[in-house]
This record gives sequence, structure tokens and C-alpha cells, in this order.
Amino acid sequence: MEDGEYIKNPTNTVNRHGKDYAKYDADLIHSIVNTASVLHISFVPDPSDPTPIILPMIGQMGTYPPSSSSPPAIYLHGYVSSRLMRLGASPSDSFSVCVCATIVDGLVLALTPFSHSYNYRSAVLHGRAYALDDSTEEGRQEKLWAMELVTDSVVAGRWENTRVPPDGGELQSTRILKVEVESASAKVRDFGPKDERKDLKREEVREKVWTGVVPVQEVLGEPVGASYNKVEEVPGYLREYVRERNIEASKYARKTACAEPPERKKREE
Amino acid sequence: MEDGEYIKNPTNTVNRHGKDYAKYDADLIHSIVNTASVLHISFVPDPSDPTPIILPMIGQMGTYPPSSSSPPAIYLHGYVSSRLMRLGASPSDSFSVCVCATIVDGLVLALTPFSHSYNYRSAVLHGRAYALDDSTEEGRQEKLWAMELVTDSVVAGRWENTRVPPDGGELQSTRILKVEVESASAKVRDFGPKDERKDLKREEVREKVWTGVVPVQEVLGEPVGASYNKVEEVPGYLREYVRERNIEASKYARKTACAEPPERKKREE
Repeated sequence: MEDGEYIKNPTNTVNRHGKDYAKYDADLIHSIVNTASVLHISFVPDPSDPTPIILPMIGQMGTYPPSSSSPPAIYLHGYVSSRLMRLGASPSDSFSVCVCATIVDGLVLALTPFSHSYNYRSAVLHGRAYALDDSTEEGRQEKLWAMELVTDSVVAGRWENTRVPPDGGELQSTRILKVEVESASAKVRDFGPKDERKDLKREEVREKVWTGVVPVQEVLGEPVGASYNKVEEVPGYLREYVRERNIEASKYARKTACAEPPERKKREE
Repeated sequence: MEDGEYIKNPTNTVNRHGKDYAKYDADLIHSIVNTASVLHISFVPDPSDPTPIILPMIGQMGTYPPSSSSPPAIYLHGYVSSRLMRLGASPSDSFSVCVCATIVDGLVLALTPFSHSYNYRSAVLHGRAYALDDSTEEGRQEKLWAMELVTDSVVAGRWENTRVPPDGGELQSTRILKVEVESASAKVRDFGPKDERKDLKREEVREKVWTGVVPVQEVLGEPVGASYNKVEEVPGYLREYVRERNIEASKYARKTACAEPPERKKREE
């Protein structure tokens, strides 16, 4: 990273058609990772066979120690991943991974199938991954910190509102994968449809085909208590989190649905 | 595939903790792929370097020719993917990929961070990928069919309500990747929280920690017309699609949020 941007290199540089939407801004990339409710991680279990595996995991980017100047890493959690966790259990034993975060913000419906698209935000990060080792006090501290980071990414404030700290057995059977990021890029499409001039000129097409955007957002619904739940009222921090996340996602999806494509704006000036 | 199930092998078999949720039912796997609004595809650009890349793409599974007994393949579209498309341009030139579809259905909030989870449906498929070649009439027919399949996966009925067929230039610059599936598995978690007995016995914990599920669904919002849209009213097929998809997603998320975990059910009998 340099001046808040990931350095372009052959691994992260977005080619050809995609390059209009490519971004290398670190804050943007981190915010996409931290907003997506699920991350996909890919790795190659057997280096002699170029067959990758993808697994969905819950994760979050953060800096440890919190007040340090270390670059943010990705912390991933998922019991899905025993195959993945076996691969690297120390920094010296790390392996190459790709992590992708994608948020769909709208269905972009143009005059022709060719110009159809999604509004979306996606980030692709490359780095080295290994499992946090809790056999040392230092490792245990980072693991506890990462467990709190990931839990609070599911619902802000959730950690301190549950039975914590985790006991020894829980700590031991939770595996956190840390990815030290080496390169990263993002792609963002955030505006209405953009048709080719040849179709925009055809009145009979424009009078027949509805064009526009269907905003898309992930909505958190009304919390449903478990059968063994004894706390009658949904707690404030949870209610607030649901409300705020829904408002934010809805505002963003709506804003991008209404935005003019960048080139069209220029033409109109 | 055999009797509607993908055969278990070392590539698709779900290990350890994940195995309680593992499924190999082909209809389930195909429906997860066809319901997810975005798919992630992973491949290794340079076989001498086990560094995978993940790209988000729009895709759909289908059988071609439509009435044949060929097993369904995955058809992917995305202009993101020039690097990917360069890799294989014919069946003899195919390369190994992994495709993953994930749908988040709920945030599962338990007494302890350790027992937190998501309700989700995910499918992981392995196969060989190559770009459809439109230099032959046969290839051109399959490509057109796949473009319609993918467009209609964005909004059912959209293809016939746009300016079709694509002209020569559009057909040529659209690249469709076909993945012939070799193995696949799914994972589904679809019920409320499940805490450990040791915590369920602690009254002071149960009286303090709210437990339950926050249902999650992707919601399609009110369509927003483009500045150059001339069709005043949102067409019926679009309105209907938005309505039905929202109802279906909401029903599923709500149903899983209210479901008892399988083992608890057994204990209660």
C-alpha cells in the first residue's frame, strides 16, 4: 500500500473491459470487505494440481494491535474450513489465497440484453493465509481480539452482550484464519443503464422496452426469538443495528439507481 | 451424477464439522446456483504458481440442447473476465474451475459467540470451463440460448421484452463461459440457534442474552426508470417478478428463522 492505495501489479490489475470500474483505494476496498455479509476465499489444496476450492466464510478486516500502524489484515471464521485450516498453522507455513467480497446493489435493465448489468461493489484481495495459533499468550490475545471483531461484524455490539470470554475449549476449537494482504483491487458500478447510441436513436425500441434499475439490497428482518430465549424484548443495540443497516443499504441502492452514467453526464454538459 | 445425486469424491466431500450440513442432491445444488444473484468463480491463471483468482459473475445452470438428457452445465457471463476468457476458448482447451453460490438467510444469535452462525445455502461445484465459440452455427445457437438463459435469470421474461436478437457485433463481444460440472456439493443451515448444554443450564446467562435469528433476504426495490426511459408504467412481467422473488425469499428466511435445530427436536420427542 502507498498513500492509501494498493500498488498495481500483474495480480491485482483489472484488465480490458473492467478497467473503467477499477479502483485501488484502500479505504474503499476495506469498506467493501467489511460491508459484505459473506466473503469467498479460494486456495489450491494441492500445488501439483491447479484445482482451486472456494469456501464462503464470515470475515472482517482490521488492524492488530488495534492502535498500531500494521496494515489491516483479513480475519476469517468458519467451521466449514477444516480442509483449509489444515493447510497453514503458522506464518512460516502460510499459503496463497484470494478473497472476494461482492455486494449487489441493483439490476440494470437496458434496451438490449448486451447492455444489461448489475450495480455492484466487489473487492478482490490476494495474500498469504495462516491459522492464528493460541499456544502463546500473544497468539491467544490476537485470536480473542479477532473473535470479537468477527462477532461484532455480524451484529455491532454483540460480543459484550453474550456470555464471554470464550472458555478454553471454545477458544481451542475456534479457528481464525488471518490473511496478510499483498495486493487488492475493487470494482464498482453505481449508475443507471447506459445504452449504445444506435439503440437510443431507435424510437420504436425506446417506446417498447422499459429501461431503468431495480435497486437491490440485503434486508435484515424482524428478529425472531429462539424457543429457549428468555429476554422478552429485542435489545436496543440489536434493534438499532437492524434499522441502521437497512437504512444505509437502501439509501445506497436507491442513490446508485438514480445516478446518471458518467459519460452521459459529460455529454450533457 | 447418479440418481439425482453428485457422487462423493475427495474433491467435493465436505469434511469434519461441515458434514452435518452437507448435501449432494443435484436439484438442491442447481436451485442454489440458480437462486443466488451472483456466482463466484475461481481458477489458477498460471499452473506453475498455485495462486487462484476469484471473480464475481452472473450465471445460471441449464441443459443444452434444452430437451436433451445432457447433464446441466453452468453458463457464466461477465465482462470482468477477459483474463479468464483468454484461458480456454474450446472444449479441448478447458481449464479447472470452482464455482460457488452462497445465499445468506439469517444471522443466528446464540448465548455465546462460539455458537453464533448464519443460516445459509451454499453450493460448491468443480468442473472444466471454456468459452463458447460462435464461429460455428452450432456454437452460435448454444451461445444465443445461453445469453437468453442468463438474461432471464436477472428478470424472468426480460429477453423477449428487449431489443433482440443481438446483432453480430454484440454476439461477438459477449463472452459466455460454459462449465461442465464434474463434482458438486451443497451446505444448508436452516434453523434457529443451538447452544451447548452447559450454557442452557445457566439461568443468569439465559436471562441476560437475547437469542434468536435475524432473518436476512435480498430485497428487490421499486424499479427506477432511466432518464431516457419512455415506457411510463413499469411492465407487468417486471412488477410480478419483483413481487414474487421478494415473497419467496421472505418466506424462506422467516421459515428457517423459526425452525428448531434438528437435534433439539429429537431430544424433545
